[in-house]
Amino acid sequence: MINKGSQKIVLIGAGNLATNLGKALYANGYTVIQVYSRTEGAACKLAEVLSADYTNVLSEIRNDAMLYIVSLKDSAFVELLPEIVKGREDAFFIHTAGSIPMDVWKGYSDRYGVLYPLQTFSKSREVDFRNIPIFLEANHKDDMEMLHSIANGLSASVYELSSDQRRYLHLAAVFACNFSNHMYTLAAELLRKQGIPFDVMLPLIDETANKVYEISPLIAQTGPAVRYDKNVIDNHLELLSDEVEKKELYEKISKSIYLTNGNK
Amino acid sequence: MINKGSQKIVLIGAGNLATNLGKALYANGYTVIQVYSRTEGAACKLAEVLSADYTNVLSEIRNDAMLYIVSLKDSAFVELLPEIVKGREDAFFIHTAGSIPMDVWKGYSDRYGVLYPLQTFSKSREVDFRNIPIFLEANHKDDMEMLHSIANGLSASVYELSSDQRRYLHLAAVFACNFSNHMYTLAAELLRKQGIPFDVMLPLIDETANKVYEISPLIAQTGPAVRYDKNVIDNHLELLSDEVEKKELYEKISKSIYLTNGNK
Repeated sequence: MINKGSQKIVLIGAGNLATNLGKALYANGYTVIQVYSRTEGAACKLAEVLSADYTNVLSEIRNDAMLYIVSLKDSAFVELLPEIVKGREDAFFIHTAGSIPMDVWKGYSDRYGVLYPLQTFSKSREVDFRNIPIFLEANHKDDMEMLHSIANGLSASVYELSSDQRRYLHLAAVFACNFSNHMYTLAAELLRKQGIPFDVMLPLIDETANKVYEISPLIAQTGPAVRYDKNVIDNHLELLSDEVEKKELYEKISKSIYLTNGNK
Repeated sequence: MINKGSQKIVLIGAGNLATNLGKALYANGYTVIQVYSRTEGAACKLAEVLSADYTNVLSEIRNDAMLYIVSLKDSAFVELLPEIVKGREDAFFIHTAGSIPMDVWKGYSDRYGVLYPLQTFSKSREVDFRNIPIFLEANHKDDMEMLHSIANGLSASVYELSSDQRRYLHLAAVFACNFSNHMYTLAAELLRKQGIPFDVMLPLIDETANKVYEISPLIAQTGPAVRYDKNVIDNHLELLSDEVEKKELYEKISKSIYLTNGNK
């Protein structure tokens, strides 16, 4: 039986994902000894919640952790990576980004991996990690076992996945999460202009999301584009005649629905 | 106190919406005396659930109902409308379509209206009508009161809305429901090609939908397009190089997100 509390972790990053992951680790008995962020306020705030030290100076990152979890924006990560590893080349380093391959660590450290939780995080919303699928990768068997042990404590859905497959997973998540949220935004704008509260849309958004638990989204598809109902579509395009962006998206997505659903 | 059971209703249509609305009316104590559908099997099936008669012959639609609810595909509705009204011009006729103005009845009947439940319906999924916003319109005050009385029995959210505003509401629903569901479909296709089960996407889809109960979708937006993270976006476009449709949508939607969220 491993004593989780003795497994010291340094968290590099204090953004949405780092905040939620840090809290979940803390709640699971792990000891986050330090939080680093370029933004001192963010580092301080998260460190307080985790009873950890904090710093916004790279050279002050502690050397005595067994695991360094890097959860920075992609661009910042690539820039800071050499500094993060320097002086602690024997430690185990992981990042949490869907889009960055594991090999980004190669040549800097010999022990590295990825822990990618598939979720959209906001600092202001607590999420239940038990329901979040976590995808792991590591270049050493022992380290993969450590990641499994940590991830199984956090979530009921833990998978191993290669960097190459993770790129596609991340891309799929952009469609299912980021792009569908943008569809909500466009709907909200249309309603606002008519003085209709966005709240009326919530039961529909809910049901659309819940439906795909039972029915595949291909089968669940409804609306005028499925059979390319020209009357309704032309009517909608006319309503969008002053909204170039929305009109173009409406046309492209309707065509894509028709092409995808025509053969079902 | 009105005796609901004595208020006879004829339901014209046996599709997804008609089925769900019919069941909700029945559960609320209304008497559906007859179901009409061009497809005899569909009419029969729904009629059985509602303890009603059924027919697939227009001329056999009964004349003794106080309310005729027409819930047909838009094109079929416009085609059948004259036949539906003929011989019962004094009755009250409503339709349930978001995109069709109330005036479509004008010249055929003098008592008409609209009852538009904002939801995506499947025959195989029971939905709780209490949570579904219902939008009403009628050309006589008395009939509007009757619609209010019916709708308030079905749902906790009942509004009056003009035909013109309802068109925009329907358009917004296409974005929030039909288009976001298509984003799920595209994600599912990408995952299928990688042998990753779609189920891993469900907690993310759930959280994306739940988030906008608390945070506006504009503020909730995450992902590479918000700050137009060129590295990630170019990487994704490369993954889509063999998928012309998805690639084009990815580019257009990312640009739209950037344009919409750039100023927030």
